[in-house]
Amino acid sequence: MSYPLFERHQALLDQALRAIAERGYWSAFPESPSPKVYGEGAAEAGKAAFEGLQNKPFPLTLPGAEGSIGAERSPYGFPLGITYPKVGLDALFAAIAKAEPAWRKAGPEAWVGVSLEILARINKRSFEIAHAVMHTTGQAFVMAFQAAGPHAQDRGLEAVTYAWEEMRRVPAKAYWEKPQGKNEPLKMEKHYRIVPRGVALVIGCNTFPTWNGYPGMFASLATGNAVVVKPHPNAILPLAISVQIAREVLAEAGFDPNIVTLVAHAAGDDTAQKLALRPEVRLIDFTGSSANGEWLEQNARQAQVYTEKAGVNQIVVDSADDIKSVARNVAFSLALYTGQMCTAPQNIYVPRGGIDTAAGHLSFDQVAQALTESVQKLLGDPARAVEILGAVVNDGVAQRIDAARALGPVLLDSQAVVHPQFKDARVRTPLIVKLDAKDDAKYLKEWFGPIAFVIATDGTGESLEIARRAAVEHGALTLSLYSTSPAVIDEAVAAAEDAGVALSINLTGGVFVNQSAAFSDYHGTGANPAANAALTDAAFVASRFRVVQHRMHV
Amino acid sequence: MSYPLFERHQALLDQALRAIAERGYWSAFPESPSPKVYGEGAAEAGKAAFEGLQNKPFPLTLPGAEGSIGAERSPYGFPLGITYPKVGLDALFAAIAKAEPAWRKAGPEAWVGVSLEILARINKRSFEIAHAVMHTTGQAFVMAFQAAGPHAQDRGLEAVTYAWEEMRRVPAKAYWEKPQGKNEPLKMEKHYRIVPRGVALVIGCNTFPTWNGYPGMFASLATGNAVVVKPHPNAILPLAISVQIAREVLAEAGFDPNIVTLVAHAAGDDTAQKLALRPEVRLIDFTGSSANGEWLEQNARQAQVYTEKAGVNQIVVDSADDIKSVARNVAFSLALYTGQMCTAPQNIYVPRGGIDTAAGHLSFDQVAQALTESVQKLLGDPARAVEILGAVVNDGVAQRIDAARALGPVLLDSQAVVHPQFKDARVRTPLIVKLDAKDDAKYLKEWFGPIAFVIATDGTGESLEIARRAAVEHGALTLSLYSTSPAVIDEAVAAAEDAGVALSINLTGGVFVNQSAAFSDYHGTGANPAANAALTDAAFVASRFRVVQHRMHV
Repeated sequence: MSYPLFERHQALLDQALRAIAERGYWSAFPESPSPKVYGEGAAEAGKAAFEGLQNKPFPLTLPGAEGSIGAERSPYGFPLGITYPKVGLDALFAAIAKAEPAWRKAGPEAWVGVSLEILARINKRSFEIAHAVMHTTGQAFVMAFQAAGPHAQDRGLEAVTYAWEEMRRVPAKAYWEKPQGKNEPLKMEKHYRIVPRGVALVIGCNTFPTWNGYPGMFASLATGNAVVVKPHPNAILPLAISVQIAREVLAEAGFDPNIVTLVAHAAGDDTAQKLALRPEVRLIDFTGSSANGEWLEQNARQAQVYTEKAGVNQIVVDSADDIKSVARNVAFSLALYTGQMCTAPQNIYVPRGGIDTAAGHLSFDQVAQALTESVQKLLGDPARAVEILGAVVNDGVAQRIDAARALGPVLLDSQAVVHPQFKDARVRTPLIVKLDAKDDAKYLKEWFGPIAFVIATDGTGESLEIARRAAVEHGALTLSLYSTSPAVIDEAVAAAEDAGVALSINLTGGVFVNQSAAFSDYHGTGANPAANAALTDAAFVASRFRVVQHRMHV
Repeated sequence: MSYPLFERHQALLDQALRAIAERGYWSAFPESPSPKVYGEGAAEAGKAAFEGLQNKPFPLTLPGAEGSIGAERSPYGFPLGITYPKVGLDALFAAIAKAEPAWRKAGPEAWVGVSLEILARINKRSFEIAHAVMHTTGQAFVMAFQAAGPHAQDRGLEAVTYAWEEMRRVPAKAYWEKPQGKNEPLKMEKHYRIVPRGVALVIGCNTFPTWNGYPGMFASLATGNAVVVKPHPNAILPLAISVQIAREVLAEAGFDPNIVTLVAHAAGDDTAQKLALRPEVRLIDFTGSSANGEWLEQNARQAQVYTEKAGVNQIVVDSADDIKSVARNVAFSLALYTGQMCTAPQNIYVPRGGIDTAAGHLSFDQVAQALTESVQKLLGDPARAVEILGAVVNDGVAQRIDAARALGPVLLDSQAVVHPQFKDARVRTPLIVKLDAKDDAKYLKEWFGPIAFVIATDGTGESLEIARRAAVEHGALTLSLYSTSPAVIDEAVAAAEDAGVALSINLTGGVFVNQSAAFSDYHGTGANPAANAALTDAAFVASRFRVVQHRMHV
């Protein structure tokens, strides 16, 4: 007998299983916000739903609630005015403990079926979530729709699929018959039960609450764990909506909704640390700063900890067919969401002697100029610029731009852009500073935000060696190479594999280094300090459950 | 093009892949020491090879060797007189670093092919290794042959098989084509390279150097890591032979043999800690005391740490068809290798009001008596007894027996047995002490050695609750139940799954609770303090490698 919600989504799961086996292009949730896909009126209804949430308590009843909390402010310049239940941790964990036994016993098909139903319902609320993400992260609307909606849902589905793939390979039972020479064989029946680890904690980040939050949340839920979601204090709403949906589905399926809970808290308090050290917490998924991620890795010893932290993403420019298409592609990567993606490039290495192109040799300055001109062209029209840039997520980014101006000759200054629609939005264009390879104290750390360095090196050999070492020592999620030389490409592949960083080669069209597609691109590798895990591989899911057997003679 | 050693063993690997999918009975390496299986003269040749190793330096050339070390003493009463190279760690790790690049690049088929060839050659030296294990651990010969030979080799093969199963599911490359509405689709080719984590450290134990050592050693080697083997100071030889074979195979296959190295050291020094904290070490497999295992988990933060530690194994006696067959089975489990197996039972819970059997009600004392009589009968003949008991592995065990005598009424005293062949062997029969459920301060810890407690409880409900809580709080690898009641069996299954401990039900024949068969029984669960990992599941192998991708347009 199969579980009803599992049956409902089995065809989708089968497609997803093929997708993770092949890792070609596949997507379950359409990225187009078109009414043809999501229905007439869906966009308007989603916007209205978001507006209806503002300036009131968020409709979520949680155990251990004692008062309320919430001070989210849109990067587009207004407070959301939404409050959330403030929960006492002891009461919360007591309620979770009550909810766990039935969920533990329900088994993989129930866990996966419920997870898939939650994702399907989250997808239906993509417009509402898009507005929630736009006004907590600063992402422009279309990006918020795609990255925080269908792309994030795909990442969640990918995690469920890997979890199912690992769980289904453990047989429910086995018949064991051992020959005993001339005597009767020994005969046993063995039963293997998949059991969850315990409570899973998901620590969300400000910039990608759903894209970075769903993989851990769904990997843990699909393996039978209870999940406590702790959003960033300025990006609570997108995860609150997700938790609300999860609780609805759990309740409808006959489970205690406290299997998925939300802990909203005020900025600067120690809620994350307190949660992370609870003995009940056996799994933690974290996205955020290296300092906080390393603290978790060092201190939350009772838990398996999956972290995505800071890094230094880099571009090595060796040679090119057409510098304009290189510059266009790189400019978009620098500008997209104001360089606030964890995958956005920061350091661009160019030989000080220049590079060869199909149109002849270009000096270092010509390469740099092509890049700055491309950024200017891309962002010349404010109305179009704000749809690429979105808004600055917090004051730290604006301050960092100011600090980075002093690092070296400014090739392109960062400018404020007036948003046609939101006059108080903080919108900034990229800052590009020229540095020399020897300035490594300046560029070998993450300058989070729209800050890029064009760095003069002795040649591509030095560029690759700096890039390799930077990834090994400081971490990196992406590396990009432009080269027409097969030998250089081979060298870059070797350096990337050595440093454990994903490499994109000669991106000049509609794919950008900061984009990572679910079911095909591994996001992070776990092989350098930027992350200790990857989205998504077997290692990301296999330790979230255990197998307990019993055996008897037959 | 396939890798030659991979091709050579591919048929075996295919069988092993089927075995891990089904987890029924399967074994690659025959457990019978018969000349029909291992060849005429194999037993004699193995014994001679072992004798030829004694009282001289072990033939192993290692980088960074500076002097020699080694003071192994047979539990059967004589020094082995074998010395091993003492290696300087800096020089050793420098040599490993030189060896790594070619091995890293060789890829999964080479790693798996080399691993399988090593196992095949280890199997050919099973007799030699059996003597080495007998005279370092104290296991009796036949057990040493089976458990440290074919059974350990099966566990090694199981780890290689799981590693291959996880690696083969990562496609080498993918074609990605994303539709763009009316425009040309985006087309990319993506390559996924499996890269190892770094250097793997295997910390061996005194009692089962190969059975507990091979899984980590082969899981790490088969995923492309270099492996440093650090044996227990009194059980170096079995792993030294294994390392010697691994180095031979590596060299013949054209790799630098320093991919597998041995660090022998003197008892009581800090070599293990120094190795565990080396930044190069990214994987650690440990079997041993809870104190040392927990130290590693707490301190070796740069590494993924897999531990098997101490626990309290338990038997719950509720009811039985035939008390004699129950007692016979339990007696053997208590006596086998002097209770020095990590899976050996210690606490036997019996209702103080006695139990029902097919032959009528038996009082607590009658149940205890059946057990003590079975032990006496099993071990009545010294010549037979020593083949079951083997020898006491170290002085601590003998001292612990003395301490345990004082805990309560002695139901059966431990006795010294004179070994017909080795007059200085320390051979001891089991001690059985009667305790009450309230004496939990006495029995809720591991009394490593031939020490068992028959504990009077208020009934099976209390027995199961004590057993459950003991496993949760103190760890357990095995739990055993005797009951004729389906309801009690269900309760025990639920308690075992809650406590994350493998349960054996009504073992009265030729299977014993301390036995765990590769390819079928999971050894440990990772779900209670006795172990943070299981032999072998996906979680045991999936984090030993990473995937690094590169992508470009096509």
